Amino acid sequence: MRTHLCNDLRREHIGAEIRVSGWVHRRRDHGGVIFVDLRDRSGLLQVVFHPPEEYGAGEAPAFDFDRAHQLRNEWVIAVRGVLRERPEGTVNPELPTGEVELEVLELEVLNQADTPPFQLDEADEVGEDIRLRHRYIDLRRPEMAANLRLRHRVVQTMRRYLDDRDFLEVETPVLTRSTPEGARDYLVPSRTHPGSFFALPQSPQLFKQLLMTAGMERYYQVAKCFRDEDLRADRQPEFTQLDLEMSFLDEEAIMQMMEGMVRAVFDAVGADSLPDPFPRMTYAEATRRFGSDRPDMRNPLELTELTEVMAEVEFKVFREPATSGGRVAALRLPGGGELSRKEIDDYTEFVGRYGAKGLAYIKVNDKAKGSEGLQSPILKFLPEDVVATILERTGAEDGDMVFFGADTRKVVNEALGALREQLARDRGLLAPGWRPLWITDFPMFEWDEDAKRYEPLHHPFTAPYPEHLDKLESDPGAALSRAYDLVLNGAEVGGGSIRIHDPETQRRVFNALGIGEEEAQEKFGFLLDAFRYGAPPHGGLAFGLDRLVALLAGADSIRDVIAFPKTQRASCLLTRAPSEVDPEQLKELGLRVSRTTQGGGS
Amino acid sequence: MRTHLCNDLRREHIGAEIRVSGWVHRRRDHGGVIFVDLRDRSGLLQVVFHPPEEYGAGEAPAFDFDRAHQLRNEWVIAVRGVLRERPEGTVNPELPTGEVELEVLELEVLNQADTPPFQLDEADEVGEDIRLRHRYIDLRRPEMAANLRLRHRVVQTMRRYLDDRDFLEVETPVLTRSTPEGARDYLVPSRTHPGSFFALPQSPQLFKQLLMTAGMERYYQVAKCFRDEDLRADRQPEFTQLDLEMSFLDEEAIMQMMEGMVRAVFDAVGADSLPDPFPRMTYAEATRRFGSDRPDMRNPLELTELTEVMAEVEFKVFREPATSGGRVAALRLPGGGELSRKEIDDYTEFVGRYGAKGLAYIKVNDKAKGSEGLQSPILKFLPEDVVATILERTGAEDGDMVFFGADTRKVVNEALGALREQLARDRGLLAPGWRPLWITDFPMFEWDEDAKRYEPLHHPFTAPYPEHLDKLESDPGAALSRAYDLVLNGAEVGGGSIRIHDPETQRRVFNALGIGEEEAQEKFGFLLDAFRYGAPPHGGLAFGLDRLVALLAGADSIRDVIAFPKTQRASCLLTRAPSEVDPEQLKELGLRVSRTTQGGGS
Repeated sequence: MRTHLCNDLRREHIGAEIRVSGWVHRRRDHGGVIFVDLRDRSGLLQVVFHPPEEYGAGEAPAFDFDRAHQLRNEWVIAVRGVLRERPEGTVNPELPTGEVELEVLELEVLNQADTPPFQLDEADEVGEDIRLRHRYIDLRRPEMAANLRLRHRVVQTMRRYLDDRDFLEVETPVLTRSTPEGARDYLVPSRTHPGSFFALPQSPQLFKQLLMTAGMERYYQVAKCFRDEDLRADRQPEFTQLDLEMSFLDEEAIMQMMEGMVRAVFDAVGADSLPDPFPRMTYAEATRRFGSDRPDMRNPLELTELTEVMAEVEFKVFREPATSGGRVAALRLPGGGELSRKEIDDYTEFVGRYGAKGLAYIKVNDKAKGSEGLQSPILKFLPEDVVATILERTGAEDGDMVFFGADTRKVVNEALGALREQLARDRGLLAPGWRPLWITDFPMFEWDEDAKRYEPLHHPFTAPYPEHLDKLESDPGAALSRAYDLVLNGAEVGGGSIRIHDPETQRRVFNALGIGEEEAQEKFGFLLDAFRYGAPPHGGLAFGLDRLVALLAGADSIRDVIAFPKTQRASCLLTRAPSEVDPEQLKELGLRVSRTTQGGGS
Repeated sequence: MRTHLCNDLRREHIGAEIRVSGWVHRRRDHGGVIFVDLRDRSGLLQVVFHPPEEYGAGEAPAFDFDRAHQLRNEWVIAVRGVLRERPEGTVNPELPTGEVELEVLELEVLNQADTPPFQLDEADEVGEDIRLRHRYIDLRRPEMAANLRLRHRVVQTMRRYLDDRDFLEVETPVLTRSTPEGARDYLVPSRTHPGSFFALPQSPQLFKQLLMTAGMERYYQVAKCFRDEDLRADRQPEFTQLDLEMSFLDEEAIMQMMEGMVRAVFDAVGADSLPDPFPRMTYAEATRRFGSDRPDMRNPLELTELTEVMAEVEFKVFREPATSGGRVAALRLPGGGELSRKEIDDYTEFVGRYGAKGLAYIKVNDKAKGSEGLQSPILKFLPEDVVATILERTGAEDGDMVFFGADTRKVVNEALGALREQLARDRGLLAPGWRPLWITDFPMFEWDEDAKRYEPLHHPFTAPYPEHLDKLESDPGAALSRAYDLVLNGAEVGGGSIRIHDPETQRRVFNALGIGEEEAQEKFGFLLDAFRYGAPPHGGLAFGLDRLVALLAGADSIRDVIAFPKTQRASCLLTRAPSEVDPEQLKELGLRVSRTTQGGGS
């Protein structure tokens, strides 16, 4: 149905007879001549239907000009014609094929089209719901097609990189048993075992560790993962990970190999190059300097530690956190003195969402004047030497603003960490380019105040540093793990660790988490069994593919790099899934519905 | 932990200091010297631990010889040593590394191992249940590791072939709406919409057609598919397809491109080359000659049509099917005259499983003697000229056996088709090599006698030949489709078709299937909607990856080419899935269990 793709055609094809097929992207009628921008997967080509009266006697091509007249946007056609140079003054320098056009000799309408629910170039103006409901039209937009092409290129580059390094792609089960990631599993009732359920995997974690035990040594998979969680932020109930695991390699070798892969991906898609090697930072330094374990390094703002400075002050709001295991920190915003009262109020409300009870600040008008040159509601509570220390440590200059956080470590880090990001966005402080960063030396556990017990910061198979083994019992909160996360421009794009591979260490970690022998055996018995039969040292990681591609695409949401995403309410507007099912099906599964809501919808 | 893989080491490395890591594959003690075959993902290397007394004073390496003495099968170790030439008479020509051995200087035990539940080289003697329960040990067997390696190579070759031809790999949803393939869907209850369910896809059929409507033009995916069906034969509840779809190509172009891909795969894995082009056969010819639409072309046996010959005979058993739309056919087995009474009885019982009421036969002892030279219980019912026609048409020679089938077409084809396969297996008649075959010109529909209506032979989106459009109403059973299946050595490895792309034809096909407007809208409304907005001509196919790899691996079951398969009862012996779940989880889903059986188990 075609000899060429639209975008293949250039000046050198002038005079050739060509067949192309595709969609009517735009149609114009200029003085009786019909111009169509024909679109196929490669791009656009101008196609011209001259009316019969423009030809000499017996010279007019045989196609039905009335039919050409009927053509509308999104009709599917095949045309045969001769490629011509565009007349002077009609060249379109914005289009790769802008110097040529196809003079049509033959027209075949392959399919008609109703007027689409939205025009391709007006997608930004319709709601996302309309785009998702008619995704087959939305994906025709060159931006969306380019996103899927980019995703393809990213995945194929990863695969080739890994193939070249002797990795095997192995498929692990989708119908499996509950995994221990913590979020809720999607369950799948079994007809052959009524009353029993499979779970969809939250990750292939256990299976990839089993593959290492099976001697596979180097495994990867582009794996669908599932979490039935409340869809805060930009998440999807099903998402895709590049999942990897390696044996006989330490974290140094793994991080180097993975850096190489990410660099190869960026090169392959024509993105700006990444540094070699990627910088690294410990979890402790990241939270201290940025209040976050995924700091955006394009952001020049940093936190200043003031906890020990505030231990002696009278001002209770600062002293109490400083003396009870909490944190007091400052965030200097250069030029922030110009913030209005309203803006400061808005930021106060903003940090409140992270649990901060207020947002103390000092506006620096004129340092030379001492206290006189500062403006702040808390100035009167702070001794002069403390104020001097604040100014010195933050490096505040005239015209700056210094914000304060004083609360538990968690609240201060989350509130000032988020404020740091918000300020950079609001004031355009982000440097251009890509800033990858490895975060290392995570704590093994974090204390869950509600449950009154430790929870794993990653998952319970993460190995502690050998020299921290004793802390598993003596001081679990201080034990550091051999985990590493890859952060890119403030987004966590990958995370992994060296795993525990001996049953004894695994038992001690379960013990620190309050998981008894019986519970461990019930939940992970098959993995613990496997470890008894010669598990090699191993480690790995998983990359969030949707997020990585969204970053590369410059997309606002991962939904823009997924062909058929679900809404924030976990439904598919296109197919109206989930939906009600035949009661007979449920009977076969040994199930009864005890509570319903309206199915489908967003 | 290593400088080389075991199987890298050859004579040219003699004298070099080497570090290798892996599993103790075998351990022998010869006169106080410990020999270990060390296994890693590449293969085996002999590693030798000499006792300290073999060294001169101060020359013995520092490793702990007692520790070496403790080594047992499947322990994980790292060793440093010097590569030596093996002493004369100890070279192992069966091993690529058989001329060298590593003299150990340093030993590190990375993990110990309990005695495995079975020895790797005794896996054939333990039941498959034991292998599945300890899959992490089963996969260490070189045969199983080779199967997963082969699978990887097959998939990567397909991907590269398709990448080179501008295909995009696109992921379609796993949590979706019921699809129309006919088998039962696995359902997934939704927590956000209690009482509503997602379905796991039986194939990405509807989504790939939507992608074509979206202008993607060339799509593929290595897609997990799910069917909750009774697991007859060698099936899995989750299986993998290479799924493809193309726009603006006809069946000729699609078949050519796919042949090229399959040839590339066979070349890449070192299999015998495939013919170019693949032979083709219509569905009608295949069922007439072989009683099957997936004939094994390595099998020289063929059916002989006798229906019209039997229309006039008195013998009711033959005349009735011949005159009422059924079929009478013969199957000649060269040399089959030697079959015993017992063997004939067994084959009679065998065809009974396919609904045949008996297995008439004629044994050809001596053709020259006429009826005297034949031996058969039915001879007395058949006129001499009919017997002569049978002998002539079947080409029977002295010493041959001719079997008969007479019943409905379905029973005759299934019974004689199966008998043809069984005879070839029993008597070693299969020619060596690969015999691919395209089957084309399938009927659109087949009559379902129970439901008293037509069912699609493929699926309801398959396009009829344009010249058969009128038969959709006048004679649906005679309408042929633009479908094509790829058969390889008797297994259907791929199947596809040109699809319907206009709403009007789709409506007529639904109509022929007794699917009304409302039902069509309810089930496939989103696809019908999509077709209204400019769907291109398109077609595609899907390859059964598990089956194709199993054929290439020479595996008896697809379970041998799947890392973590399920049993015939759809359970996973390794993880004991499916399993019971916390009642709290069900409550959140708005579900109650009304009937249970013992969960898990095989």
